[in-house]
Amino acid sequence: MASRICDSVLVTGSNRGIGLELVHQLVNSPSSPLQIFAGCRDPNGPKAQELQELAQKHQDVITVVQLDTDSVTSITEASKLVEARLNGRGLNVIINNAGVNIPGSLAETGKQEMVDVYTTNVVGPMLIAKNFHPLLCKAAAQFPHQTSMSCSRSAIINVSTLLSSITRCPENFSRSPMYPYRVSKAALNMLTRCLAEDFKKDGILVMALHPGWVQTEMGGPQAYLTTAESISGMMKVITSITEKDSGTLLDWEGNNIPW
Amino acid sequence: MASRICDSVLVTGSNRGIGLELVHQLVNSPSSPLQIFAGCRDPNGPKAQELQELAQKHQDVITVVQLDTDSVTSITEASKLVEARLNGRGLNVIINNAGVNIPGSLAETGKQEMVDVYTTNVVGPMLIAKNFHPLLCKAAAQFPHQTSMSCSRSAIINVSTLLSSITRCPENFSRSPMYPYRVSKAALNMLTRCLAEDFKKDGILVMALHPGWVQTEMGGPQAYLTTAESISGMMKVITSITEKDSGTLLDWEGNNIPW
Repeated sequence: MASRICDSVLVTGSNRGIGLELVHQLVNSPSSPLQIFAGCRDPNGPKAQELQELAQKHQDVITVVQLDTDSVTSITEASKLVEARLNGRGLNVIINNAGVNIPGSLAETGKQEMVDVYTTNVVGPMLIAKNFHPLLCKAAAQFPHQTSMSCSRSAIINVSTLLSSITRCPENFSRSPMYPYRVSKAALNMLTRCLAEDFKKDGILVMALHPGWVQTEMGGPQAYLTTAESISGMMKVITSITEKDSGTLLDWEGNNIPW
Repeated sequence: MASRICDSVLVTGSNRGIGLELVHQLVNSPSSPLQIFAGCRDPNGPKAQELQELAQKHQDVITVVQLDTDSVTSITEASKLVEARLNGRGLNVIINNAGVNIPGSLAETGKQEMVDVYTTNVVGPMLIAKNFHPLLCKAAAQFPHQTSMSCSRSAIINVSTLLSSITRCPENFSRSPMYPYRVSKAALNMLTRCLAEDFKKDGILVMALHPGWVQTEMGGPQAYLTTAESISGMMKVITSITEKDSGTLLDWEGNNIPW
């Protein structure tokens, strides 16, 4: 049996799309984590049914956690619950996947759209990083090989996008202006880079990951990747990254994307 | 006499620091614009006194405009006033200078700081670009040489910072973590790039400009540039940029800064 990807992982926005497939592939992997915390805004709502069924099948591994990343209170409560369930151990990995897109040209974009998308896509991951930092530090300190960085030890993976690349904006702007989304994801990249610098001393790897253009509710049916293909690639990247990848933006095939 | 920098310009946040010095150097330049709109949140407050005195001395050129870039209503009203004063002509240049910094480590940064700084530093310039777009288009269309881009024709200059560079973050992060500021300014860079793509068809140049580390209320007394030195450099850059500079981030000496 392969060595475990990590002992414990938290996936935000895990009730659908990329998040749900991540939990699915993580739990069904031969190297499955011991504990998967599946964060979800409304665990009892109709949109969380598939996640609840998956969690039911893997009760020993999956814990569904109420986690609204727009709410400071919800994040604090979730971190307490995760801490209690970890029972003295640290949390190895956080995958900040919860995100929104309000597609829009400049004419369609107002103050509210800009602030709402930023709050979910940037402030949420910032608050998650801040609140779960002690648990990540604990995992990093408990890891037997304390000189290296990896997801086995401690890491934050921020789900970003090719559309976050300022360098590559001219290639794809006309097809998808998406002001609130692009601007928020470039901001998320800066947050990633800051956290990578900040948490280096703690042995915590921080990176951003572009899942590809995926057939989800957000990506639409014309996207070129199924969620299964995307997550399969992301899983390979996640299991192979080392300290040289901290503070970078990679795609689901492990290729570097320029800022 | 040198040809004019441009016929008309709007400078936001012009009652102090970089904004005030910009208005000062613009109006005292031998190639001064015909009309300078000096945007300021509270034109009748004590912090606008120096600007009001300068405007008094140059009544034929400077119009002080109430402009709170956090307020959609204020921006709309300001654009109407500027339009009326332009009397059928377009607006050549907008310098989005209004900005805030809440310095802070991760521990000191909460949701409110993140959202407030983003609102002023990113949403403000977005709303300004959107509301003044028709006036910029008019200036671009009225310009005699309609194939080129320049500040004489039509441009948006977003005041950014070296700290917005994700690439260069590791060099300076430990000295100044400034999460809300850095993250917002990386977002502003993406906004700049999007607007540059979007407004290319209209002949409007859009770029971001790093004024250097300047001795202002925001920069502090230990900064290496006086406002006069910084603005003198910025003025040279502003007067020399062409379409090849649209969508880029330059410093006050005209050097390119990587995203």
